Amino acid sequence: MQPTFVHRRRIQYYETDAMGVVHHSNHIRIFEEARVEWLRARGLTKIHVPYGKLVFAVIDAKLKYLKPLGFDEEIEVITQGRLVGVRLFFQYAIWSGKQRQFAALGETELVPLTQDFKPSKLPTEAVEAYKLEPWDSQWPPKWP
Amino acid sequence: MQPTFVHRRRIQYYETDAMGVVHHSNHIRIFEEARVEWLRARGLTKIHVPYGKLVFAVIDAKLKYLKPLGFDEEIEVITQGRLVGVRLFFQYAIWSGKQRQFAALGETELVPLTQDFKPSKLPTEAVEAYKLEPWDSQWPPKWP
Amino acid sequence: MQPTFVHRRRIQYYETDAMGVVHHSNHIRIFEEARVEWLRARGLTKIHVPYGKLVFAVIDAKLKYLKPLGFDEEIEVITQGRLVGVRLFFQYAIWSGKQRQFAALGETELVPLTQDFKPSKLPTEAVEAYKLEPWDSQWPPKWP
Amino acid sequence: MQPTFVHRRRIQYYETDAMGVVHHSNHIRIFEEARVEWLRARGLTKIHVPYGKLVFAVIDAKLKYLKPLGFDEEIEVITQGRLVGVRLFFQYAIWSGKQRQFAALGETELVPLTQDFKPSKLPTEAVEAYKLEPWDSQWPPKWP
Repeated sequence: MQPTFVHRRRIQYYETDAMGVVHHSNHIRIFEEARVEWLRARGLTKIHVPYGKLVFAVIDAKLKYLKPLGFDEEIEVITQGRLVGVRLFFQYAIWSGKQRQFAALGETELVPLTQDFKPSKLPTEAVEAYKLEPWDSQWPPKWP
Repeated sequence: MQPTFVHRRRIQYYETDAMGVVHHSNHIRIFEEARVEWLRARGLTKIHVPYGKLVFAVIDAKLKYLKPLGFDEEIEVITQGRLVGVRLFFQYAIWSGKQRQFAALGETELVPLTQDFKPSKLPTEAVEAYKLEPWDSQWPPKWP
Repeated sequence: MQPTFVHRRRIQYYETDAMGVVHHSNHIRIFEEARVEWLRARGLTKIHVPYGKLVFAVIDAKLKYLKPLGFDEEIEVITQGRLVGVRLFFQYAIWSGKQRQFAALGETELVPLTQDFKPSKLPTEAVEAYKLEPWDSQWPPKWP
Repeated sequence: MQPTFVHRRRIQYYETDAMGVVHHSNHIRIFEEARVEWLRARGLTKIHVPYGKLVFAVIDAKLKYLKPLGFDEEIEVITQGRLVGVRLFFQYAIWSGKQRQFAALGETELVPLTQDFKPSKLPTEAVEAYKLEPWDSQWPPKWP
């Protein structure tokens, strides 16, 4: 079994709202941040602007908010991704070490586009990389 | 048939990203803004902090991104809401006047909480207000 | 005496932080929003991308935070702008109607650039428009 | 001479705007993030909510934007802080490794408050810690 990809960081003060916890819009930003690190770990950021020629448009997002996350809380964002046709499909789970439970789950679908927003395809090399990628049909995974 | 609720505003520069269009996290903020105006139009903001005692936690969100939205673009956010058990369920559709089409669709589920995050109920008056609320089973509605 | 330019709006929930008030980064966004409306009222947005060819880079910003602003609070953003050499200089004051006092003051300096970030000049027509613009050397102005 | 405090991170996609570079409001967030790490390195986060009883209100901010920062760019945020009377005064410099130059400079002033926004003082222990803190009167420092 391959290691699951994890991105670790803390909750920033500017991500909280008047309820004292992370505003529900910021989970999408945290997912994006984790996705970029997932791509980097696989050498796939190089096809993305500014390194390469593609941009990736999010066309669908789903989020489940399970527990509030407070300022400075340490989180682990577990991520998996796969290619289905021309679409990239990612799943995320935010684990709170302090709470010993998942705080949020999410998924996003993306399509590769040229910089002037024309539909595009992934380079063969990237397609091959995605084919090697494991996919856990049960989500969230057992953790930690 | 009752008038559908519409919130109008423009896309801010600070809402755009390097693709030149609204970042996909900001649609959730636009939905929130529209929801507050929907509540205000029904006299329901008064049960919400700081006017009342409740906060509302978003527990689920779904978004479909149909078309990119550029800086200064005028949008109409059409919103409907209903109460199902103790949960508030809202649907949103962002219409671009310039593009003459919907740019995004979304839905969020919320639960009322006390300020220390204990489950709570809506006041009777608010429950009654929600009962009067129309609900369009077809979403997005025909527009304009 | 000409009327001072005012942009009115409410504080959004997503602009608050765990202190229960607007996060200090968001005042810059509110200033930007007011500046765009100031430009629009003078027909000057047309020289700005996407309507025209220029972008405007902020090169300096100063902010004074006088009073906290809460969720849903109604604010008035009073704005004045002038051209000094090739630089646009703006001042802002955020008035809270509820508190009957200014909540924040700020200023920003901007330079016009081409879209590939080369220094540029304002079109003559815009320079003429700025010359007609009043400037209140005392800031904030007497209000309301 | 003690080592200068540095916080390293990358520019996130959600921090960029339609100019393709970091929006000028986000530098304030990056400064905040660096300040928290500066405090953590000195054991001073413990006096801050949620660990302690104080919050810190920013009352003044100044920013100079020298160079644009692009998506995924690696930055170093160099920070120094000192206590002057009851005010905390911080200076920041954002270094771009790719550009080999400073991209932005900034400073913020903060005051400690109780959670209901009453003026407060730092605990003696924190005052002592600040007294030990070096302060570079030339800013930004020579780098790297």
